[in-house]
Amino acid sequence: MSHNSFGQLFRFTTWGESHGPALGVVVDGCPAGLAISEAMIQEKLDRRKPGQSKYTTQRREPDQVKILSGTFEDERTDGLRTTGTPISLMIENTDQRSKDYGDIRDKFRPGHADFTYEQKYGIRDYRGGGRSSARETAARVAAGAVAQLVVPDIKIRASLVQVGPHKINYDRFDWDQVDQNPFFCADPVAAEEWAAYLDGIRKEGSSVGAVIEVVAENVPVGLGAPIYGKLDQDLASAMMSINAVKAVEIGAGFDAAELTGIENADEMRAGEGAPYFKSNKAGGILGGISNGDPVVVRFAVKPTSSILVPRETVTKTNENTDIITKGRHDPCVGIRAVPVGEAMMALVLADHFLRHRGQTGRDGGVGF
Amino acid sequence: MSHNSFGQLFRFTTWGESHGPALGVVVDGCPAGLAISEAMIQEKLDRRKPGQSKYTTQRREPDQVKILSGTFEDERTDGLRTTGTPISLMIENTDQRSKDYGDIRDKFRPGHADFTYEQKYGIRDYRGGGRSSARETAARVAAGAVAQLVVPDIKIRASLVQVGPHKINYDRFDWDQVDQNPFFCADPVAAEEWAAYLDGIRKEGSSVGAVIEVVAENVPVGLGAPIYGKLDQDLASAMMSINAVKAVEIGAGFDAAELTGIENADEMRAGEGAPYFKSNKAGGILGGISNGDPVVVRFAVKPTSSILVPRETVTKTNENTDIITKGRHDPCVGIRAVPVGEAMMALVLADHFLRHRGQTGRDGGVGF
Amino acid sequence: MSHNSFGQLFRFTTWGESHGPALGVVVDGCPAGLAISEAMIQEKLDRRKPGQSKYTTQRREPDQVKILSGTFEDERTDGLRTTGTPISLMIENTDQRSKDYGDIRDKFRPGHADFTYEQKYGIRDYRGGGRSSARETAARVAAGAVAQLVVPDIKIRASLVQVGPHKINYDRFDWDQVDQNPFFCADPVAAEEWAAYLDGIRKEGSSVGAVIEVVAENVPVGLGAPIYGKLDQDLASAMMSINAVKAVEIGAGFDAAELTGIENADEMRAGEGAPYFKSNKAGGILGGISNGDPVVVRFAVKPTSSILVPRETVTKTNENTDIITKGRHDPCVGIRAVPVGEAMMALVLADHFLRHRGQTGRDGGVGF
Amino acid sequence: MSHNSFGQLFRFTTWGESHGPALGVVVDGCPAGLAISEAMIQEKLDRRKPGQSKYTTQRREPDQVKILSGTFEDERTDGLRTTGTPISLMIENTDQRSKDYGDIRDKFRPGHADFTYEQKYGIRDYRGGGRSSARETAARVAAGAVAQLVVPDIKIRASLVQVGPHKINYDRFDWDQVDQNPFFCADPVAAEEWAAYLDGIRKEGSSVGAVIEVVAENVPVGLGAPIYGKLDQDLASAMMSINAVKAVEIGAGFDAAELTGIENADEMRAGEGAPYFKSNKAGGILGGISNGDPVVVRFAVKPTSSILVPRETVTKTNENTDIITKGRHDPCVGIRAVPVGEAMMALVLADHFLRHRGQTGRDGGVGF
Repeated sequence: MSHNSFGQLFRFTTWGESHGPALGVVVDGCPAGLAISEAMIQEKLDRRKPGQSKYTTQRREPDQVKILSGTFEDERTDGLRTTGTPISLMIENTDQRSKDYGDIRDKFRPGHADFTYEQKYGIRDYRGGGRSSARETAARVAAGAVAQLVVPDIKIRASLVQVGPHKINYDRFDWDQVDQNPFFCADPVAAEEWAAYLDGIRKEGSSVGAVIEVVAENVPVGLGAPIYGKLDQDLASAMMSINAVKAVEIGAGFDAAELTGIENADEMRAGEGAPYFKSNKAGGILGGISNGDPVVVRFAVKPTSSILVPRETVTKTNENTDIITKGRHDPCVGIRAVPVGEAMMALVLADHFLRHRGQTGRDGGVGF
Repeated sequence: MSHNSFGQLFRFTTWGESHGPALGVVVDGCPAGLAISEAMIQEKLDRRKPGQSKYTTQRREPDQVKILSGTFEDERTDGLRTTGTPISLMIENTDQRSKDYGDIRDKFRPGHADFTYEQKYGIRDYRGGGRSSARETAARVAAGAVAQLVVPDIKIRASLVQVGPHKINYDRFDWDQVDQNPFFCADPVAAEEWAAYLDGIRKEGSSVGAVIEVVAENVPVGLGAPIYGKLDQDLASAMMSINAVKAVEIGAGFDAAELTGIENADEMRAGEGAPYFKSNKAGGILGGISNGDPVVVRFAVKPTSSILVPRETVTKTNENTDIITKGRHDPCVGIRAVPVGEAMMALVLADHFLRHRGQTGRDGGVGF
Repeated sequence: MSHNSFGQLFRFTTWGESHGPALGVVVDGCPAGLAISEAMIQEKLDRRKPGQSKYTTQRREPDQVKILSGTFEDERTDGLRTTGTPISLMIENTDQRSKDYGDIRDKFRPGHADFTYEQKYGIRDYRGGGRSSARETAARVAAGAVAQLVVPDIKIRASLVQVGPHKINYDRFDWDQVDQNPFFCADPVAAEEWAAYLDGIRKEGSSVGAVIEVVAENVPVGLGAPIYGKLDQDLASAMMSINAVKAVEIGAGFDAAELTGIENADEMRAGEGAPYFKSNKAGGILGGISNGDPVVVRFAVKPTSSILVPRETVTKTNENTDIITKGRHDPCVGIRAVPVGEAMMALVLADHFLRHRGQTGRDGGVGF
Repeated sequence: MSHNSFGQLFRFTTWGESHGPALGVVVDGCPAGLAISEAMIQEKLDRRKPGQSKYTTQRREPDQVKILSGTFEDERTDGLRTTGTPISLMIENTDQRSKDYGDIRDKFRPGHADFTYEQKYGIRDYRGGGRSSARETAARVAAGAVAQLVVPDIKIRASLVQVGPHKINYDRFDWDQVDQNPFFCADPVAAEEWAAYLDGIRKEGSSVGAVIEVVAENVPVGLGAPIYGKLDQDLASAMMSINAVKAVEIGAGFDAAELTGIENADEMRAGEGAPYFKSNKAGGILGGISNGDPVVVRFAVKPTSSILVPRETVTKTNENTDIITKGRHDPCVGIRAVPVGEAMMALVLADHFLRHRGQTGRDGGVGF
């Protein structure tokens, strides 16, 4: 057990606060011999980092990652390789701007973890949210890059599918669009609408929530271990652990409640070499085990409570007061959660891939 | 780690198949000295068991629980008490009716775990769904009864809040109604509507999904351990592990995506002795830690795929075929998930109560 | 984590007290498709059970095991097979003889866990030692039988090598002798000497300690995971968890402290297809990983403190008193620990076999 | 689970190779509010570091530790305090001297982990032993310093008690002597003898083993969780995980095998406010739970196999060859294991202290 570790055979542990000297992650259980590099991890981090557009936080962090252990290279290894020992990754914080947070030392920001951390621990690093800051997600994205090495054939992509009340149109869904706009949105028309909408939100000093959809394709059959090691269970856990997430669904999700048994069950047909499913309401998971179809997960991110509008709250000594966030402000934190969702999907699948292989000796797949 | 265990300090492990001689659970880590009895556990099981109304499966199981270990009583203990050692509970299966399942040996029922279990393990007990059967939830409910002993002051109740497309009206919400109708529904008017609706569904030989809401009140502040031991994360994991669940949300859930920061953040005011929240969009959890407000979780159950209508599928040898479920059939499996949701809430809270006490030496609460 | 579970991928959880209705174990993570039977498990239990000779406890327990879950059989499976789901094994207690323990309710037996259980939990089942009773080892032996199925090519055998101050002569070591005498002793001459020696001990109403050596042959190279998942570490943990064990050593063990680097290091030579070691001071483990040589573990069992001689102790209310054990009495509990040591070796190796396969995709072996 | 983590509620994860840029540890689960500083950790590291005397390795590492997370300080906290979030500690490597290891790339050093790492992973960092290097123990000592903060009233001390065949005389045992000689030896006469003896060993280019005894005093009653979370079990696991350890014993240890029940059981007498034990063969642990007496653990370290004498071995391609270690060489690696043993004792006790508090709500102690 560990409060700050996730996973069983492929397990990672993150550390670091928003205003500490650095943050990082130790990845344990990674198979040996995989080709790895700082550049490869950096590429994933660069997608996530703040200060990329006017819609995401203006904090400028280079988020440069360093590999401190778990790899080796000489003239025979054909590049840098994992050794099977723990891989320690570190990212230094450079743009903390402590003075922005001075007056929240004695007040609890509504919607943030200030109150609960203070009650639980009796002490909290209030600068930038301390350990509860979303900067921790940089460590996840770095770990996710390593996880992807374990399951190189699984293609993982995510798209923002809703911002505030505005949803995409699935008929226009095109993965190639995701990196063409500031929203990681697969629907270019929606991306346009959201630009205007979020401009308004940002100018009001307000914020809005979002929904992200993550899809993993080419997932082998058999990943997931009933009853309490189910794949969907670990995906729900993984997404819910992300800052500001309040909901997770698989496949048809909440809509499945409204369907009948006839509408919901994905019928099967004989295929070439193996059967296939006529539909995918299940989201690629049946009985907690992957069935070969794309694994589809959606999660909802609440609007950030750091807004430029005064809010009622209390002080540490239980007295009424107001609070207003100054300085940096994110109109939609959900945007930057997109690469984080991809990372969590990779981390869960890598872990389950190793666990399945451990218990069965197989890499997954259809046994026909 | 364990595929069939859940929890850290308060940990339970279930075992048993639908058509095996029995099923059961071992509860480990329960504090010593708590008053316990088979009757107390039986009471919770009786709420869950099949054959109670025409809306739930007609399989008749007495689900009699026996305590086999972990307790002790003599003339000084003031009744039967837990000893701090593992508590083994067993429930015998009596009404298996093997002959109902004979022809699904070679076919995969759509929407069920047949296909995935077969691919993962190369073998499956196809009678009644084997280990994937919802009978396993009886073990959970038994374990949940023990968990409630650890947190006796926390009041946990659940209600069915949606059946198919029909939702309750929260203005009529009354907990006292939950045990007055066959649906565990807090809205008596909705219960009436559902009766008629489900009669139709049942006669069609079809099924429909549902949404359950679980509420825990009087939860002390401080339960949950960031970043990967968050309370909402473990609740999502717990509910998603229940058979047929496809979605979980906390507080405002998916609706939070549509809210602005102003609408969503729960402001705070000074209260008597401690502050309080003006609203509860957070569902009682902030930054992964309980904030003292009711913890509110909702989860969606898909419609069962065991319906009396032929479905297209394949055989074990990848040939097209049809399949039709005969015999027992549940028009809405979500109904019986209500006590299971309560049990999972108790199990997660008991575990977090002990973990919080372990790390901080406190039982939770507001430190003013 | 779990106080009553052991292992990671191949994990078992035991339950049950000496005087409860039954005891048992849930084995989780066992691969599917392995041939299993109650008879096979019973065979290993029969080697362990009490009442077999005048040198072991006169409590007569049939120790009949039942398999309650985790297996399946039809006309195609070629006998009963594991399904990959949890295997629940139960053994009923039949010969508890409660009246033997009545007067130890208020006194702490020296050398037993009475005092510490009472302080830790505030309550204890004092009949027969409750949960601290060696009857729990029956559950381990049952679980060990299942573990052996995972590593069928590994040959595991144990021998008593010392009783009190009397050691065997390794020059006479012959595995075929182990089941030919009541001591599981590979040295027939020592067995004779011990018979006379223990007769004396038993008549005095006293007891004596012992040392057991467990050897696993044909262990593939590569099992064990540095730094904190080392094979020798888990073996030490496993043996130390057995009742009354106070010491564990691997290979040369404590003797290694007296050796020089020249004497201790096992040199290597090229062999047919793979290298071999000229000696085995390492006990088959280097750097925490198996090296292909026999894995050799020894552990010491203290003499039981349940003897027929009065001992000074205190009551629950901190008053001086005497205590004397009546009824059943074991002159050397170490004898029955021999099959338990074999079981623990199997359980650790099975777990490490799966973990190694999980992380590397290989079954172990020399990669030349 | 994790190959590189140890502990349950107080859990640490180490990372880093001998010749990598750094090594470190992440400590998770530490209670909040404890006073901490780099200086405090550095003090423990300085006791361990190489290059301190002619009897320990001549590699000169400053082993400067940095705290990167998990702490906070402002004008009200009264110094630097733990926050309850993960504490990341890092120690940079400065004196790697890569050229010393060039020719062992293709050969397996006898007695080292080269062969087994290569077989398990297919790749190894051969410089300085890579991950198998004893430099990892610096990370343990740093983590142990944090652990001591959790149990400040427990006094933990260790002494070397045997070097090669030469044992100390317990009649001369004086803790104050331990830091007065280069051997951490509580017997000043033995320390003198060892100086001469080891001078000889070192000049021969050879090495010798050792035995270390670690004692924890003022341990509260009740730590340890039967059956598989026993305190002695975790201590055995902890010590066996240290490089080059081949044996562990508690209290009378292997000698207990030679004792009778009369000699071995520690009788009890009524004391002031609580009972006490007349002797301590049990080593402070009964039934896996601490009994209030000093916890006494001894472990044996084998002689290092890195010696300046040619040894027979094989190459990676299974060909006979010789190997000789050049450069730095430790005549007795056991010396530096003394602070490591203290650290592991602290780490296990801190973990069990929190686990006991979690399950029982008490800090341990005698309930009279």
